[in-house]
Amino acid sequence: MKLLPKSVEKAIEEFSKLPGIGPKSASRLVFHLIRQHQSSSQLLGDALNNLHNSLIFCSQCFNIADADPCPVCADQSRDSNVICVVEQPLDAVALERTEFNGRYHILGGSISPIDGIGPDNLNIKPLFRRLKDNPGVSELIIATNPTMEGEATALYLQQQLNELGLKPKVTRIAHGLPVGGDLEYADAVTLTRAIEGRQTLV
Amino acid sequence: MKLLPKSVEKAIEEFSKLPGIGPKSASRLVFHLIRQHQSSSQLLGDALNNLHNSLIFCSQCFNIADADPCPVCADQSRDSNVICVVEQPLDAVALERTEFNGRYHILGGSISPIDGIGPDNLNIKPLFRRLKDNPGVSELIIATNPTMEGEATALYLQQQLNELGLKPKVTRIAHGLPVGGDLEYADAVTLTRAIEGRQTLV
Repeated sequence: MKLLPKSVEKAIEEFSKLPGIGPKSASRLVFHLIRQHQSSSQLLGDALNNLHNSLIFCSQCFNIADADPCPVCADQSRDSNVICVVEQPLDAVALERTEFNGRYHILGGSISPIDGIGPDNLNIKPLFRRLKDNPGVSELIIATNPTMEGEATALYLQQQLNELGLKPKVTRIAHGLPVGGDLEYADAVTLTRAIEGRQTLV
Repeated sequence: MKLLPKSVEKAIEEFSKLPGIGPKSASRLVFHLIRQHQSSSQLLGDALNNLHNSLIFCSQCFNIADADPCPVCADQSRDSNVICVVEQPLDAVALERTEFNGRYHILGGSISPIDGIGPDNLNIKPLFRRLKDNPGVSELIIATNPTMEGEATALYLQQQLNELGLKPKVTRIAHGLPVGGDLEYADAVTLTRAIEGRQTLV
């Protein structure tokens, strides 16, 4: 028997569609909201209803934004000669927590033939156009994820840049042990990278 | 620098307020919704905006419902002489997956002095009134959680029923090894309960 009111069932059903949220977590979230004042669920509800409103992609870096150019591309105090290539907007958000003060280029994913994603499905051609239009760019930091797809994408970018004769300095973010990590628990690939990327202590 | 559009920041902020969802999971959920069609986030948004609409408590069993009496209390085909006492509406939802065909009584929690929850904060008095008004009730199944608070609540109910001279048969759901569980990994308390609750094989 359906014990729960329709509005509750509906909210649970919609929450369950989110990745990583099964029917049980969804129920718990909904009952949490029921116990809260009505305004809590309405704040979230309104935020979701407004989510897509006025969302656009920056025509330069392809980050998600509410203005074009996006705040980073519009910020004249940032170094426009260093471009950091990432897969997703959240990767750029993560890098904003560092000292990095250049620009970004969001690929929108990584090359993954198994998922039917080739170079043409990503913002790779616009990257090359951007480099041609801005010959002052001195460094391209490839910060795709250290996954098979991310590495393949990095390799592809490097090859294409060579073929196209675009010659900014191309760098790849370092791979190695995460700070606070433990050698004992590190996997062999990470350790190999950590050894390969070793740096001279002054 | 705030990289993300306001509508995205707002949705992440509201998701982060939910229990068990930190800023990182919230970001992932929001970017999942951004990648989906606008209708996905609006379905969830509308469900949340409508969540509290017309939610009431059933005056008999105190389950959350959109009608009074709730579907279970209104269903004449169910055995009204067996009442199963649970802490929360979701507990009743879980029990609906069994063969149980009686009625429920939702306490709204368990006795927990540390959280300032005493018997008067729960729907315990209405339970006694319900039993007085329905002398035909032959069994009261106490299905509070097998936690310290749930056990204390079960004990309290039993004592009060004795004092008040209300004499339905009072039972407690069985505790023991969960089906598919492994003796080797069971804790001592559960094992003790499993031994105590052993049943004769016919």
